[in-house]
This record gives sequence, structure tokens and C-alpha cells, in this order.
Amino acid sequence: MINIIIITHGEFGAYLVEAAEGIVGPQDGGVLCVGISARMSVVEVRGRLSEALERVRGKGEMIVVTDMPGGTPANVAIPLLKDRPEVPVISGVNLYMLVTAFNYRKTAATASELAEKMLSAGQRAVSNIRVLLAGRA
Amino acid sequence: MINIIIITHGEFGAYLVEAAEGIVGPQDGGVLCVGISARMSVVEVRGRLSEALERVRGKGEMIVVTDMPGGTPANVAIPLLKDRPEVPVISGVNLYMLVTAFNYRKTAATASELAEKMLSAGQRAVSNIRVLLAGRA
Repeated sequence: MINIIIITHGEFGAYLVEAAEGIVGPQDGGVLCVGISARMSVVEVRGRLSEALERVRGKGEMIVVTDMPGGTPANVAIPLLKDRPEVPVISGVNLYMLVTAFNYRKTAATASELAEKMLSAGQRAVSNIRVLLAGRA
Repeated sequence: MINIIIITHGEFGAYLVEAAEGIVGPQDGGVLCVGISARMSVVEVRGRLSEALERVRGKGEMIVVTDMPGGTPANVAIPLLKDRPEVPVISGVNLYMLVTAFNYRKTAATASELAEKMLSAGQRAVSNIRVLLAGRA
């Protein structure tokens, strides 16, 4: 079972997890959200993320998911995981990326394989759905 | 000013808006969220979205943004907007897509132009940020 740690500006990560669980079913642990506010210092954000990383230590592989390539979540995650190249750090979390993570985190062979699936799903989800649906009709 | 209507599973759309406003600054109206729950009927979801569309009627162009290509939000939005081809309907909302919408909704010439910018930003945000940052170094 691959652990998923989601770090976002504000609290939307937790609500996104709730929405994905509503589609896929509840996850039995191993999914942690870190929501940061503008009032937190970088030191505090780093502490929160370290704490989440510590909570899943020794419990299997993990993927860190951020909301966008820049900004505090990504800027804190990258240096903190510099010496752990086996942990994928991906950005741009959306609902379908998370639904895909929840669907495959039990069966994916490696975190890296799951991260690829999540990136592919996340990207495909960003689309002009009028065009998409017209193409299917 | 282009209106943005966000329809999602659950309430994460409203929190995503809050996070984007935390980065870009508060939006003076014209941004509406419709959150749907598993307990709502399709008729009720359609009613909520119709109401949001009605609230921005005559106040400029609009874009409808959903969380993923399938699922109730997209499945309700597409038929409801069948006779309004001028309204882009896009999916896969993530933070950077919304930040981009808020940055350009005052200056974009058309909803279609803004939708293209949002799709491009949303897709670019979905990335392996270790690789992205290594490439930039």
C-alpha cells in the first residue's frame, strides 16, 4: 500500500480527499493532508510536512503531492526530500489524479509507477469536455 | 470581467477558490461554486447549476469548470449548456488553473481565450516537480 501525502495552500486538500473517497470509497490510513496558511512560517510548514513524513516512515513507499509547481508547499517539499530520491514529488493535484491514486495504491508495484499513473490521469482530466464528449459521440 | 462557475463533487471547490484568492487576491464577485453531495438527485444538481448560471446572466461571458471529465458535475453541465456553445466547459480544476483564471479574467478578450489559458496552465501544473526543478537548475 503506497502512502499519499498531500500538501496544499489552505485546506482544500482535505476536502479533495473527501470528494475522492466519496467516489472510490474510504481509504484505510496512509493518506495524510498538510494544509498551510499564509500565517505559517516556512519553519512551521517544514515541521508539519516532516511530521507527516515521519508518520508513514517504515510503512511502505510514499508519494508527496503538491498543489502547484511553485509556492510554499512545493518549495518546502523539494529540499526536505532532497536525500530521498525514491519519493516522487508531483504537483497539480486534481480530483481525477487522487481518484487514480486511491484506485491503484494497493496494487501498484512501486511509488514511481503510481506517480506516473497519477500524472497521466491528472493531465488527461484537464480538458475541454465539450470537445472530448463530441469526439466520443 | 469573465465569470467563473465551478462545479465539483463535495465542497472542495469553495476551498480551492479560497486558496487561489490567498495567492492572487480576493475576487469581486463573478466567481460561484456549486458543491454537490452524493445525497443530491440529478434534478437538484441541475437546479443548483441553473441557479448559478442565472446569477451571472447578462453580466458578461462565463466559463464552467468541473472537477473531472466524468461524474455528475460534468454530466449535468454538458446537457444544460448544449444550446450555449459560447460557454466553455472545462474539467480537471486544480489550483494553478484557478490562479490563472483569476489573474486573467479581467483582461482576457473572450471566455474562449481565457479557457485556453486555464487549460494550458492546469496541464503544465501537473508535473513531476523534481524533474522540473532539476531541469531549471
